[in-house]
Amino acid sequence: MNSPLRLGLAGLGTVGASLARLIEAKAETLANRVGRSIEVVAVSARDRSKDRGIDIAGLAWFDDPVALASEAEIDVFVELVGGADGPAHEAVKAALGRGIPVVTANKALLAHHGVSLARLAARKGTEILFEAAVAGGIPIIKTMREGLSGNSVSRVYGILNGTCNYMLTRMEAEGIAFDDCLADAQRLGYAEADPTFDIGGFDAAHKLAILTSLAFGCEIDLDSVFIEGISAVTNDDIAAAAELGYRIKLLAVACRTDTGIEQRVHPTMIPSSSAMAQVNGVTNAVAVDSDLLGSILLAGPGAGGDATASAVLSDIMDVAGGVLPPTLGLPPAKLAPYKRARMRAHEGGYYIRLSVYDRVGAFASIARRMAENQISLESIVQRKLPGAVDPSTAPVVLVTHETTEAAVRKALEAVSKDGHLKGEPKMIRIESLN
Amino acid sequence: MNSPLRLGLAGLGTVGASLARLIEAKAETLANRVGRSIEVVAVSARDRSKDRGIDIAGLAWFDDPVALASEAEIDVFVELVGGADGPAHEAVKAALGRGIPVVTANKALLAHHGVSLARLAARKGTEILFEAAVAGGIPIIKTMREGLSGNSVSRVYGILNGTCNYMLTRMEAEGIAFDDCLADAQRLGYAEADPTFDIGGFDAAHKLAILTSLAFGCEIDLDSVFIEGISAVTNDDIAAAAELGYRIKLLAVACRTDTGIEQRVHPTMIPSSSAMAQVNGVTNAVAVDSDLLGSILLAGPGAGGDATASAVLSDIMDVAGGVLPPTLGLPPAKLAPYKRARMRAHEGGYYIRLSVYDRVGAFASIARRMAENQISLESIVQRKLPGAVDPSTAPVVLVTHETTEAAVRKALEAVSKDGHLKGEPKMIRIESLN
Repeated sequence: MNSPLRLGLAGLGTVGASLARLIEAKAETLANRVGRSIEVVAVSARDRSKDRGIDIAGLAWFDDPVALASEAEIDVFVELVGGADGPAHEAVKAALGRGIPVVTANKALLAHHGVSLARLAARKGTEILFEAAVAGGIPIIKTMREGLSGNSVSRVYGILNGTCNYMLTRMEAEGIAFDDCLADAQRLGYAEADPTFDIGGFDAAHKLAILTSLAFGCEIDLDSVFIEGISAVTNDDIAAAAELGYRIKLLAVACRTDTGIEQRVHPTMIPSSSAMAQVNGVTNAVAVDSDLLGSILLAGPGAGGDATASAVLSDIMDVAGGVLPPTLGLPPAKLAPYKRARMRAHEGGYYIRLSVYDRVGAFASIARRMAENQISLESIVQRKLPGAVDPSTAPVVLVTHETTEAAVRKALEAVSKDGHLKGEPKMIRIESLN
Repeated sequence: MNSPLRLGLAGLGTVGASLARLIEAKAETLANRVGRSIEVVAVSARDRSKDRGIDIAGLAWFDDPVALASEAEIDVFVELVGGADGPAHEAVKAALGRGIPVVTANKALLAHHGVSLARLAARKGTEILFEAAVAGGIPIIKTMREGLSGNSVSRVYGILNGTCNYMLTRMEAEGIAFDDCLADAQRLGYAEADPTFDIGGFDAAHKLAILTSLAFGCEIDLDSVFIEGISAVTNDDIAAAAELGYRIKLLAVACRTDTGIEQRVHPTMIPSSSAMAQVNGVTNAVAVDSDLLGSILLAGPGAGGDATASAVLSDIMDVAGGVLPPTLGLPPAKLAPYKRARMRAHEGGYYIRLSVYDRVGAFASIARRMAENQISLESIVQRKLPGAVDPSTAPVVLVTHETTEAAVRKALEAVSKDGHLKGEPKMIRIESLN
């Protein structure tokens, strides 16, 4: 049996406490598997006296995670503090500076500083592992970094935010309105008191930016992600989608185009018959399209203490077994600069929902604006709903054939100016899945 | 840049030729990723002169894979010969005997000799990698061996045979009869001239036996897999399943029970709304239930030259990067003996289809036999089909609540003896999915 692997664990929240418990409870299994014991020897958290169901009496205590990372006698620094900057960033830099590998679940840290940290790690002969930073317990980082290592990826996409998927699933299944659904999600702990980071699409964007780098061998560029959250999705949209054979998901997509790499997070209609459309509740899923494999899909728990701890633990086990793959799948010097594809050049189908005043010529005017912008329509549905609130307008649903974002925006702007619409036009992008 | 990784490649069929082409075409990308070049330096195949679209002029040629494995100056032996015994087995033993790591796509070799080969490898300080042996391009071996390394698995199950899934998908979608569907699959190259190995469930059983070992840390035991193929599945069964909210798949399942580990391959009804049920055509999928993750699912191409070569290549890349995980996830000395759970003790729901003579008391007699065996029924459907072939009988479909295989077999035997049935009773197991 080799010498024990000594962990310094910064952050004893849900995931950190879960990890500490697991390492103790599964000590023998883990040691059997990897040929050495794994031991937490030093910890750092805000409150030393809090009861977390773990015994920290025998461990070195640090009030400051940076001090732990800088001074503790450890073989691996496990960062579960969170946050892009501040102590988490400083502590990770300190550990890497000592040549100590870092295991982290911190998506914000990676999305903002992943490339510079990977460079620091490489200079110091070590690496950062971050399986838990994207899609919780799903081993998507390992899969993309190692399992697909001979593949050229054309698109990676997925359901990366459990809060949004939980809400959209319930809105569809039970017909609950967005606001009621959000209140429920908050009550049940699936959404934060300030839900903006989740339902605004920002959480998914962080994860997508990391996946983009692994998929295309390029630098991480969070600022280039086009982001649209789910707060404008209504039960009517969901019902219309169902009639058209689609479900609405908050999809995060990165794909290679002629002009660069597109990164976008937005409510998306996907075919109801696809495996991705069956991903319900807080479950996450990621699909990768590549030259050799066609398409693969991974689905599983996107959050939760144990699931996230499982991902952290698999990274720790890799380090214990002597495996230190390049942080972003490639040596940092080989990463290409990120080349952004403009969202206006995005090509795809669109679902458009208009509230049209019931006037002669309104529909002809809308159809002309579409034609002027070379948008051809796959389907057009206009009908009065029984019990419609406003008898002077009719909902019109258009589904376009493949067109561009620029054309759709231009057409909708013109339609709006023509004065036939009550309120703003509504648009949801459609994603073709293999 | 480190020294090149020299490969000896035995077998230049579809996968071998695809691999050789990929290694040449992607040379720069692969070298960038892993910091050293990857080169095929020696090959072995049946016919030296055959045109495979690759240039073998500069490579060392061996008529015999065993000679290649024994004598060539190589760092990795890639076995794509196939077959449980004979040259493949001898060559792998020869390579391991020299301490050279082996990468193989050979499920039969692993299912029959995996444990003894893992022991030989461990003694010689090397390992066998076999990502391509199970579920083609899906990185399920890496996921189970490394991604779930802290998890305790309770069940692993999946769609592991593309031929069967292709046939069941077409039978359902197009209402084609089994024999016509098989003829089509053979014409299109999705089924062999002798399809027994696929449609009899044997191919899936080989793959399951390997997954079982990784899931439960036990020795491989192919002989203990309960196997039932798809040849008795009819369009009527598929239609009845759909009405009940199920789809029929050839599912391979291994799970921990109170009496041991169950391994079984059989046509299975699974909920139509599950992600597994959306896995269509030649696609494969594997799901793993475990303590920390709940459930995860991986889906992707189960066969094909490029997809299989992709999996072989990911193993080669691991070796190139200095990664040699334990062959079966654990050092061989730590593998537990396989403890078999008897199929008669299997617990689950059952779909039962009977052709009952239209007589007074027949139905009461059937119901009594079920009750005698403590089988409670979830649903009972008896109805004459319009245009039924035989007006003297009626099809009766029973769906049981959870019961045991022994009880169902005993009840059906008694029903048969009572003389109310035309032909044999038909039974399809139902699998509960999370």
